[in-house]
Amino acid sequence: MRHKQLKDIGEFGLIAELKKKFPFSSDVVRSIGDDTAVLKKDRNTYSLFTTDMMVEGVHFKSDDFPRDVGYKAMAVNVSDIAAMGGVPKWAVISLGISPKRSLEDVRELYRGIRKCAVLFGVQVVGGDTVKSSKIVISVSLIGEVKKKEVVFRDGARPGDRIFVTGSLGGSLKSQKHLRFVPRVEEGRLLATKFKPTAMIDISDGLVADLGHILQESGVGADIFKDDIPANKDVSFKQALYDGEDFELLFTLPEKKTKGLGMSKSVQHQFYEIGRIVDQRQGLSLIDGKGKRQPLVVKGYTHF
Amino acid sequence: MRHKQLKDIGEFGLIAELKKKFPFSSDVVRSIGDDTAVLKKDRNTYSLFTTDMMVEGVHFKSDDFPRDVGYKAMAVNVSDIAAMGGVPKWAVISLGISPKRSLEDVRELYRGIRKCAVLFGVQVVGGDTVKSSKIVISVSLIGEVKKKEVVFRDGARPGDRIFVTGSLGGSLKSQKHLRFVPRVEEGRLLATKFKPTAMIDISDGLVADLGHILQESGVGADIFKDDIPANKDVSFKQALYDGEDFELLFTLPEKKTKGLGMSKSVQHQFYEIGRIVDQRQGLSLIDGKGKRQPLVVKGYTHF
Repeated sequence: MRHKQLKDIGEFGLIAELKKKFPFSSDVVRSIGDDTAVLKKDRNTYSLFTTDMMVEGVHFKSDDFPRDVGYKAMAVNVSDIAAMGGVPKWAVISLGISPKRSLEDVRELYRGIRKCAVLFGVQVVGGDTVKSSKIVISVSLIGEVKKKEVVFRDGARPGDRIFVTGSLGGSLKSQKHLRFVPRVEEGRLLATKFKPTAMIDISDGLVADLGHILQESGVGADIFKDDIPANKDVSFKQALYDGEDFELLFTLPEKKTKGLGMSKSVQHQFYEIGRIVDQRQGLSLIDGKGKRQPLVVKGYTHF
Repeated sequence: MRHKQLKDIGEFGLIAELKKKFPFSSDVVRSIGDDTAVLKKDRNTYSLFTTDMMVEGVHFKSDDFPRDVGYKAMAVNVSDIAAMGGVPKWAVISLGISPKRSLEDVRELYRGIRKCAVLFGVQVVGGDTVKSSKIVISVSLIGEVKKKEVVFRDGARPGDRIFVTGSLGGSLKSQKHLRFVPRVEEGRLLATKFKPTAMIDISDGLVADLGHILQESGVGADIFKDDIPANKDVSFKQALYDGEDFELLFTLPEKKTKGLGMSKSVQHQFYEIGRIVDQRQGLSLIDGKGKRQPLVVKGYTHF
């Protein structure tokens, strides 16, 4: 009999286990399982706290530009803060790297980190540099959001419309995953003016991340095949299942969607792709002729 | 001609470079280069923010118990908060691990993390789990300290007495480095009742970490050979230069040291090992006969 391995329960199985095992007091509003942890800062403000790790050969290739790698390591964390409607503020960086690595590569990596940090007003306030044969980079980021503006994953209600902030699919091949612009501006606009009922950034793929919203909110969804924006040279399936696009996916009550149309601009594009339905209806894809096809929630998983 | 490698400037060279390149606004009190970053939280409180990364084969052996590894990953961060006089609060954990790793090992690792977290009231509020052939674990920790209690590295003044909280040397061999108790209680007692002029946790070795205090404070030190507490079966040299003891090293004005003697207990032992002198005198070791020997600041470095 084989002993159980980590992959037998997978990333989400592990998260579910950990969620049960680590207890919280009342200063923790959201913990393991949302885009970021949410902590009470003061009467009107929440602190957001998140971390992401990237490993050479897994999340980026050995011949990717170090500057792109550094940029991405910061950007994926900024994107998590954006998904809560928050503002990123302070970061610490753990870097595992070989001492034999060229100094120029290390500097390029930090230039990439700095580029993203400056773009979003993040201050890099500390870190740790250790020896590792492969590059491993872990950024942890603190952000802030007003209590009345924060957006979780669990508020989607039947009738809500579903939107994404940009086109999807093929991010790994096109290298968008190394150079995307985290949707902080859009997240802030939405949180302050429109108050989405649920929001997440698309890292695991449209269907997988929509699945997180549906599960947390206890609802289902119809999405419309013809309305899903796909990147150039990308199949429809890729737009549904590819990960690492880092667009925001959010839900809005119908009556609020008109205002959203009015703030459309080149900077802020919002694509309506479907609507929230009752949980018993599950998740369906509806084609141009109205034909309904049930979708199984899957996408990129780490194991 | 060989291109410059990271090891040519080393960890501290890199830190010095980064310190110059990343600018800060007034909400950042201390950044790159102290035990933790120090951020303004409210009128009376600072947030402390720190991160440490551990890599299999570098910071622990492949056959170390996963529970010990998890415990240490949390404990080294807790120790950094202790060195500021603070209270550890919220952590996020990035774990790189092979999907083929036994589920029991993963659970043991998290049990170790949890053991340390519970011991010090730390809430683990989030994380990221990714694929990696070797185990890499990066914990980031937020703590808090009252403004009037925080202790930096730069306040040591000639005449101050130098103390450590426990005996030193041989931590890697004895496995103390996997099972040490971070000196949070001692740090709090000192910060609230005695107000050290400088404090640091001994991770790089007594001489190296004292070197950090001397450099930041612009002072020198005499340390007394006969007063330095060495662990059992450990040479005097090891007590001076070995890393990973995670005892606190701190300085106190002479007039405050009497009170310190009075709070000596089994729980809180403080060993006086020397005194701060003028910067021009540098760092010296003084033996039982009063013979003075200059010491070069060196110790464990990561590259």
